[in-house]
Parts: sequence; structure tokens; C-alpha cells
Amino acid sequence: MLDIKTEFTTNPKNKPAVEALGFGQYFTDHMFIVEYTEGKGWHDARIIPYQPIQIDPSAMVFHYGQAVFEGLKAYKTVDGKVLLFRPDRNFARLNNSNERMVIPAIDEAFALEALKQLVTIDREWVPDAPGTSLYIRPFIIGTEANLGVHPSKSYKFIIIMSPSGSYYKEGINPVKIMVEQKYVRAVAGGTGEAKTAGNYASALKGQEIATAEGYSQTLWLDGKEKKYVEEVGSMNIFFKINGKVVTPALNGSILPGITRDSMIQVLKSKNIPVEERRITIDEVVEANKNGTLEEVFGTGTAAVISPVGELKYLDEKIIINDGKIGEVSQMLYDTLTGIQNGTIEDTFGWTIKL
Amino acid sequence: MLDIKTEFTTNPKNKPAVEALGFGQYFTDHMFIVEYTEGKGWHDARIIPYQPIQIDPSAMVFHYGQAVFEGLKAYKTVDGKVLLFRPDRNFARLNNSNERMVIPAIDEAFALEALKQLVTIDREWVPDAPGTSLYIRPFIIGTEANLGVHPSKSYKFIIIMSPSGSYYKEGINPVKIMVEQKYVRAVAGGTGEAKTAGNYASALKGQEIATAEGYSQTLWLDGKEKKYVEEVGSMNIFFKINGKVVTPALNGSILPGITRDSMIQVLKSKNIPVEERRITIDEVVEANKNGTLEEVFGTGTAAVISPVGELKYLDEKIIINDGKIGEVSQMLYDTLTGIQNGTIEDTFGWTIKL
Ligand SMILES: Cc1ncc(COP(=O)(O)O)c(C=O)c1O
Ligand SMILES: Cc1ncc(COP(=O)(O)O)c(C=O)c1O
Repeated sequence: MLDIKTEFTTNPKNKPAVEALGFGQYFTDHMFIVEYTEGKGWHDARIIPYQPIQIDPSAMVFHYGQAVFEGLKAYKTVDGKVLLFRPDRNFARLNNSNERMVIPAIDEAFALEALKQLVTIDREWVPDAPGTSLYIRPFIIGTEANLGVHPSKSYKFIIIMSPSGSYYKEGINPVKIMVEQKYVRAVAGGTGEAKTAGNYASALKGQEIATAEGYSQTLWLDGKEKKYVEEVGSMNIFFKINGKVVTPALNGSILPGITRDSMIQVLKSKNIPVEERRITIDEVVEANKNGTLEEVFGTGTAAVISPVGELKYLDEKIIINDGKIGEVSQMLYDTLTGIQNGTIEDTFGWTIKL
Repeated sequence: MLDIKTEFTTNPKNKPAVEALGFGQYFTDHMFIVEYTEGKGWHDARIIPYQPIQIDPSAMVFHYGQAVFEGLKAYKTVDGKVLLFRPDRNFARLNNSNERMVIPAIDEAFALEALKQLVTIDREWVPDAPGTSLYIRPFIIGTEANLGVHPSKSYKFIIIMSPSGSYYKEGINPVKIMVEQKYVRAVAGGTGEAKTAGNYASALKGQEIATAEGYSQTLWLDGKEKKYVEEVGSMNIFFKINGKVVTPALNGSILPGITRDSMIQVLKSKNIPVEERRITIDEVVEANKNGTLEEVFGTGTAAVISPVGELKYLDEKIIINDGKIGEVSQMLYDTLTGIQNGTIEDTFGWTIKL
């Protein structure tokens, strides 16, 4: 395994007040970086003070978008330990994204080791107020200074970390989401199941439209028939219909969320019926009409669960569960956050203690 | 209009030998850069020595892919003048890409002025051997240091330039292209008509497959039905069938090529019938079977014209015009390159002399 050199900062930053944290605005004192050069592989792994990178204006990432990333969190437990939640799944998914985007694979065990060292060095940055966490962003970018359209011959794999505030400061607030009609996020055969930069850029337009209409997120339909539900902005989506929980099956254009997978496992462990299958937006509208649409919620690392209180489709506004969080959503939220902050026993083996 | 400050290099580089140029490998002595800050607009326009940029690892372009670009060329005429080819179209298209990717618009007239100043300063870098040119790459990247998924609040608009060699050193070589079956480049409602980084990253996988089978480029079908011809890697595509030239209509998922538009105008001026319409891959196969598929060629800034000598679709290998360049392709190539290097009178008003 590669050696990781460490250079400690001589100039530690002041940590922001917990109320000021927000999301993704402040960064810890250190970052991890390792280089890839064709013919040489990954090399020069190091943990260094958080700092700007120097990069040629012709670097491929700026032009042809070879960029993949991950998002996971470290949590502080009540007894002061730091827990990572399923980091192995993130590095496995990063390699799936790499494969699709023609980026060389990383050594997942090495990445995990690097992450542990980095979090340990910056452990004072893991906030401990309820609901707060340290957001971790591993990412890889193509850095070759060349304008030919081909896979980059050099890359940087970087991990940066950002203390983040509580998503729900005043209890869990259901969100309003809008079904996008005109723009498409991903299509079968495209890059939807990869966590690659371009997917997010292409979704901004839909987000802009939703925001202008007073909705906080976009619900994306499939790119081919605009009929099947796919996912929400940066969350997977679940529907509870007539006692059963349904979520779109992983079809190649949906991001395989790690929270999604965890929710399915928790549901199964509690004997709540859960189905991964295709689901049309019409089925959701129909369920609402006949009174069987009981809960709708999004799942993702950032908020864990986002109950959906209102769903707009064409001219129809569907109010779900009177705009309040449902029973199953609440149970899933409590279970997952409990495991993440160490107050509920982790019978799934999901957490790694540092 | 903004003021452009100029800082000249004190350390001019050696110019590479014309045979060594290739494409996009060497860069001129200077670059143009202008910054955008929310609330302030575009500011600090300057021409400076070509140099790496310093950028925060959390800069949005690395994570959410807000990046658009253009590609155009400056040519040296036999009498030593420098010509730009339709640069106004490139800046107009850049603004269309900006609109789709939720990036603030640039002032097109100002961009053109900046480009003229930059090319004038580096005019010694415009090579003059036959077929060579100065490739110009304007691009915009989101630079806000923040991990929230939203449009960046700051951007850099940069122009870099690279002397490029002759595309056809030993006469015009027809290329072999392969119809991609599994992967998709773009879909209606997606970002196909924007010149944005993610489109190119998502196309690398198809390119990898084509290369492995000995083909130099991918022919993309529509993302919805995989039935209609869209475009090739970084070229638009034309078919001459039974005396008529046909090219896919601009449908939202195809890049509106400036060479494509120029070819259509040249064809019309010569009274050669040309149609922009939907064309299925089956129609192409059928035309080949009944002997009416006369020419196939790609068009783009890099090569102007790339005749297609072989087209692979499923298990079928279609040889076009005995693998040689066709009459219309040759005429279009000669006309456009003649206008570009000043040996044919520019009756279209396409060139700008510096
Ligand atoms: C497009 C998209 N879908 C779903 C998710 C949820 O995935 P996860 O649960 O792994 O955070 C995310 C966020 O990471 C995302 O960006
Ligand atoms: C995807 C794509 N299609 C077509 C083209 C051709 O466009 P133009 O003729 O403007 O160079 C390009 C190249 O710029 C391209 O990248």
C-alpha cells in the first residue's frame, strides 16, 4: 500500500460557530491528495494543509468534464467517538463512476485508510451539536494539459471535508417538490448512475424552474418516456402506497444511493414490505386520488430523510399526509440517525469507529 | 465596454516545429481572463502570460460541472494576414450554452474585442504552413468555493490558444466510424445542444469501445429510440443520398455546428439540394443496399471535413464511395479552407481580418 506523507498546518483556522455552519461553506485544516500519471499509477499520496490547487487552464476537467465525486459523513457520538457511515460503499461507488467516465480505478482499501488518517488529524472539526456532522467530499479530476478529446493521462484524487450544520433546525420540515416536464437529467445509456459532475450541471436548469415556482427540488422522470419516476435533485425517492414502500429500481439512470440501500435494509429488518420496481408518475397520482398515497420521502446523505409534503405534477398539486412527516419516514429517520450517532446499536455493521 | 489590461510575458516560449504541433498540446505566450462575481458582473479583464490558475479544491466546476467552451481557429493567409472564421457565431453559441447551464451571459462584442487583442498579441503563433492554424479555446468555469448544489456565484471566462498542425498531412484520409448501440451521448431535454464539458466526458466510453474495435469515432443515435442519427464525436454528420445532401435537423440534442451551418450555405449557393431533417440509421443502411448512398462526411472546426469511408452498424460494415473522398465533400473542403486561408473570395462575409 502507498505511503501517506503528512504535512501539518502551522496556521490552524478558527472553527466557525455551530449556528453559522450551513452546508459546504467551511473547510477543515487539511486535505488528502494523490496523483495519477499514466504508466506510473497513483503516486505521491499526502495529507497537506487545505489549500488552492495550481492547475493548467488547458486541464481536461475544465473542458471535457472528467470528474467524479462522493459524499459521506463522519458523526460524533455522545461519548466523543467519531463514526464513519459505510465509507466502503462510497469508494466502491466511486470506482463504478470511474469505470463509466473512463477514469482509472482507485484502490478502495487505500482510499479508506487515507480517509481515516485525514479524519483523525482533523477530528476536532467533527461538530458535536445534535444533527451536525463532518461532510466528506472525495473527488477525482482529469488534469492533463491537453485539448484533444480523450481520457486524461493524469488525475488528482482529493478528499476535502466541511463541518456541516443541522439540516433540520426546527424539527423535520417536509419539502415541496415539482415534477420536471421539459428538461431531462439522465437517460438509459447515459451517465445517470455515475456520480459525475456533468449530471449536476445539467440538473441546474430544472432546479432553477422549480425554485422560481416556490418548490425546493425537482423530481426527475425517465429521459425516454417521461413516465417513470427516477429521483429527486440529490436524493432517491420512496412512496408508501397502501402499506407498501415502493422505490424506483436501479435501472442505470438513477444514482444508487447508499442511504436508499440502508433504508431498504432497515425496512426489511422491520418486516415492512418494500419493493424496488418501476413506478410511473401516473401510479402516484392515482394512489393519491384513491387515498392510498400514505407517505413520500427522499433519501440522501445530506438530510438522511426529506419527507415530501407537496408534489406538483402538471397542474396538479398533491398534498401528502397533510404536509406532515409520516410514521415510516420518522422511524427510518430515527433509526438511521441513531445508528450514525451511536445511540442505536449498529446491528448492520455499517459504522466504522475511529 | 470593459477595459483590458495587458501584461506581456518577459519570457516568451520557443515555438515548436510545425511537424511537432499536433492538436492542443502547445499553448501560446498569453491568455485572456475575466472574472464574474455575483452582484458585480464581469470584471478585471486582462491579457496575461499563459500560466496555471490557482483554484480552490471546492470550486464548483470540479464537483458540479458548470463548464462551457468554444472552439474556433485563426488562419494565416498567403499574404501574411490573420483571419478569424465566424467568431461571432462562437460567442453567440457560448451564450446559448451559458443559458442552458445557468451561467451568466457574456458580452459577445466585448469577447470578440478581447479575442482580437489576444490574437494580435500572439500573432506570431499563427502557423503558416498549409493546413495549419491557431486553435482558439474560449471557456467558462464556475469557481465558487462551495459544495452546495446551486449555480456558482463566481466564474472565470478564459481564452487560451494552441497552434495546431495540419489535420491531413498526406491528403484527406477518410475515417471509419461506428454506430454506438449501448451508450447514449444526449437526449432531448438534456444538454446535447450546449457545448458543455459533461457531454464530452459522457462520450468517452463510446469512444473507448469504438477505438478498441479499430474505429476512430462514434456515431451517436438519439437517446430515446436509438433510431435517428445525431452526430459524430465532435462533428456533425452529412449523407449524400441519390444526389441530395441530408443532415440531421437541429432538434435540441445535437450541437449546432458552425461548420455545419457554413456547409449548408455553401451547398445552397452552389444549387446542390440540401435537407435538414430527421434521418434514421435504417434509411442510411437502405440507401447503401440500393446503391444510392453516395457520400458520408463529418463537419467540424478541427478537420473542416472528414469523409467517412466505413460505417459500422450492428454487424454490418458499410463501405462508402469505395472508401474514398466524394466529389461534394472535396468541393466543400476546398471551398471552406479556401475562404479560411484567403485564397477564395469570402462572398459570405464570414472572415474577420486582423
Ligand atoms: C443524484 C443523487 N441521487 C441520490 C443521492 C443519494 O445518495 P446517497 O444516499 O448515497 O447520499 C445523491 C446524493 O448523494 C445524489 O446526488
Ligand atoms: C459534439 C460536437 N458536434 C459538432 C461539432 C462541430 O461544430 P463546429 O463546426 O462548430 O466546430 C463539434 C465541434 O466543435 C462538437 O464538439
